[in-house]
Amino acid sequence: MAWYLDVIRRAEIVDTRTGVKGANVLMSNGYEIWKRMQNILDEKFYGTNHKTMIFPLLIPEKFLMMEKEHFEGFVPEVALVTHAGEKKLEENYALRPTSETIMYHLYSQWIRSYTDLPLKVNQWCNIIRIDTKDTRPLLRDREFHWTEAHTCHETAEEAEEQVKESMWIYSTFFDECCLPYLVLKRPKHDTFPGAEYSVAYDCPLPDGKSLQIGTTHNLAQGFSKVFKIKFQKADGSHDFAYQTCYGLSTRVIAAVIGVHGDDRGLILPPYLAPTQIAIIPIIFKGKEEKVKKTSKEIYEKIKSSGIRVILDDGPKTSGWKFNEYELRGVPLRIEVGPRDVEKGSVIIVRRDTKEKIEVKNEDIIEEIQKLFEAITTELKQRAKTLLEKSVSTIETLEEIEEKFNTKKPGFIRTNWCGNKKCAEYIKENFRANILGTKYGEVEQVFGDCPVCGEKAKHVVYLSRTY
Amino acid sequence: MAWYLDVIRRAEIVDTRTGVKGANVLMSNGYEIWKRMQNILDEKFYGTNHKTMIFPLLIPEKFLMMEKEHFEGFVPEVALVTHAGEKKLEENYALRPTSETIMYHLYSQWIRSYTDLPLKVNQWCNIIRIDTKDTRPLLRDREFHWTEAHTCHETAEEAEEQVKESMWIYSTFFDECCLPYLVLKRPKHDTFPGAEYSVAYDCPLPDGKSLQIGTTHNLAQGFSKVFKIKFQKADGSHDFAYQTCYGLSTRVIAAVIGVHGDDRGLILPPYLAPTQIAIIPIIFKGKEEKVKKTSKEIYEKIKSSGIRVILDDGPKTSGWKFNEYELRGVPLRIEVGPRDVEKGSVIIVRRDTKEKIEVKNEDIIEEIQKLFEAITTELKQRAKTLLEKSVSTIETLEEIEEKFNTKKPGFIRTNWCGNKKCAEYIKENFRANILGTKYGEVEQVFGDCPVCGEKAKHVVYLSRTY
Repeated sequence: MAWYLDVIRRAEIVDTRTGVKGANVLMSNGYEIWKRMQNILDEKFYGTNHKTMIFPLLIPEKFLMMEKEHFEGFVPEVALVTHAGEKKLEENYALRPTSETIMYHLYSQWIRSYTDLPLKVNQWCNIIRIDTKDTRPLLRDREFHWTEAHTCHETAEEAEEQVKESMWIYSTFFDECCLPYLVLKRPKHDTFPGAEYSVAYDCPLPDGKSLQIGTTHNLAQGFSKVFKIKFQKADGSHDFAYQTCYGLSTRVIAAVIGVHGDDRGLILPPYLAPTQIAIIPIIFKGKEEKVKKTSKEIYEKIKSSGIRVILDDGPKTSGWKFNEYELRGVPLRIEVGPRDVEKGSVIIVRRDTKEKIEVKNEDIIEEIQKLFEAITTELKQRAKTLLEKSVSTIETLEEIEEKFNTKKPGFIRTNWCGNKKCAEYIKENFRANILGTKYGEVEQVFGDCPVCGEKAKHVVYLSRTY
Repeated sequence: MAWYLDVIRRAEIVDTRTGVKGANVLMSNGYEIWKRMQNILDEKFYGTNHKTMIFPLLIPEKFLMMEKEHFEGFVPEVALVTHAGEKKLEENYALRPTSETIMYHLYSQWIRSYTDLPLKVNQWCNIIRIDTKDTRPLLRDREFHWTEAHTCHETAEEAEEQVKESMWIYSTFFDECCLPYLVLKRPKHDTFPGAEYSVAYDCPLPDGKSLQIGTTHNLAQGFSKVFKIKFQKADGSHDFAYQTCYGLSTRVIAAVIGVHGDDRGLILPPYLAPTQIAIIPIIFKGKEEKVKKTSKEIYEKIKSSGIRVILDDGPKTSGWKFNEYELRGVPLRIEVGPRDVEKGSVIIVRRDTKEKIEVKNEDIIEEIQKLFEAITTELKQRAKTLLEKSVSTIETLEEIEEKFNTKKPGFIRTNWCGNKKCAEYIKENFRANILGTKYGEVEQVFGDCPVCGEKAKHVVYLSRTY
């Protein structure tokens, strides 16, 4: 955690010195990574006919109270606006802790007929939750940024299809971010307040904990009945809409940093990196001009091909610059020295493997494209290895305890009777959660419930979580 | 105003039925226009070395109180968060009514040396002001979306240069939006709280009022002294940073709608239009297949060239579709009828002039590009004409009164002594403001102050404003 806090500040991802706990500055490099994540997701959202809209931050407090479970789940951490200046407001406004209530209030006014369905809306926005637990930048913030999509359908089957579409969108997105994850259906007691069931994407981190990096909920008709999202079918009869929602946040930035970073700093997939290449002229006295000129030419060539490149010919030493761009996770560094200039080549250094490659100037663009692909492949392979290494299949309580006493317990795959009491036992004794069962796959139980010894119903995954 | 409210709802720009006055839904077409405005501006911001960051929505109440004038200007309309659920917070948080205080709190921690300057940061975010006046969607909202850029410089001269850069960014942006505007330096009494001087961009609307669509402020050292944004110069001495800030909001969407719309609905510049072309097959019995097939081919051809096109072969009548896409401001409509199919051509209809053009299928992409340019030129010409027609040069109070008694007074160009009392007289008697003097141009006074009869110091522009 000390590494993480240090690196996100120095790499200009987040600054926490705002005077408000858990409400931080997303600095320029953090913002640029998030923007590229938005681009990847927007392409998928538009390709699957989602519309984008922005709903209000301010929600009448009474809307939150309409769905009882939802209300109980969220109200303790809802920020309430009670005053404008010194004047008390007639009605309190909640700051959105999530947008179901305000969006569904509008949906009930927009949807009249089956011809209005499906309705698929995505929103990019800020979210406020006055979490009482420890805040940690990007991992657990009081203000964060996210995408939340909310859909309405004619039938339960179509809503189920939508759950799958959301999982395709998110899974392919996480793959493009080179992230490892399990897709787990949460146990009933850990379902989103108001939902029929919840599926989450859990990312293993190298420190042995896991991070929930996204969720999909099948809401069935729970909200639509409360908010009266009613429509007329083709046959003239009426029904309430079947709904789904899914969201993911700036937490994904933390996952990319945590999964791939090393002791030198960030390692970023080339697509996400705010700066993809740093060119560093290696200056020796008497040869400055040639090196600077060649560096500039190479910079112009790379830049004009649409790659995000910088040329650092500032007064700092080369060593300082190497460290700086490694810290920031710039995928490739190009060194241009006097001998390289004479040979008509440059040295390209990979951030992920530290490998040095000599490249002829005329092949540079082609070689960069190949290296970007090679880095992406390497990071995906590392993610895969991390996930495989993170899962331990365990049958007994003793061994579970033993595993949680190690430094990096990861995911524990075991059996569960389905009883909430056993989940609470695990929570209290190991500070760990039953995350749920593999979505879309029934795994055969291989023993009894390790806590109570009763017959197991499910194979489940446990972990300590952020 | 009735026309405006009707059109923005039906064209899916804004829905106000949220349960919170002045906090509306930016619907998909409104969002897509805003996103394209963001793209235009981002290109200019990045091209002039602005970084993008996101600062917190929540600001400690005490920060707002640090700059006295600023505090007095904003506090009455600041939304205050006092509770999390039922629990009173230890400290109240303000929702940003603008971000000077929180950003400059951070700047004071980031800036140490002249090598840290200039610092130029842009932020895209939501803003909350619990305005007590009448709210009107996009024109005067309690929640709105904007860009605010905040810069720090070594010298007063560099800050002045930055003011000019911001004016270049905004002016060229408004030009690309086909908007008319005056650039006016506000009188001292109407300067942004805490600023040295303020410049605003005032857009004439066809109803004879004007709309402030952007502002630039030279803050000098007013805030940097309060927030201690101090740096060491090259010579070892210390100084406080010279600052500027500039912002514009979703109000610009309202300006585009108001300036160009007609009784059929929106007219949008092609670059901003969410849908640029609607293809409508004209179906007659017996010829459906050929028409549908050709329409589909044309759709694919246009789409693959990167133009935002839709094909509407739904069951509604052609007349209904024509009205619908005219309402939404789609710049071009393509009609494909059985006779056109035989001739290998289509009919293209311009939204702005209603002109119908027959185009051979093989020339279609080229012709569309030409028409987009022609529409942009036409809308710019209309904007220019509107601006010219809007300004009346008037010398006497009687004539000013007469002009304000007409339906569409527009801008009144007259003389002013510089006394706030005369400005107040105009405000009280005509519900109009002295907007200020032309920026960067000293206009010769052509008479005495029409209110008090004293010697005039400035040529100023008056108008009723939104």
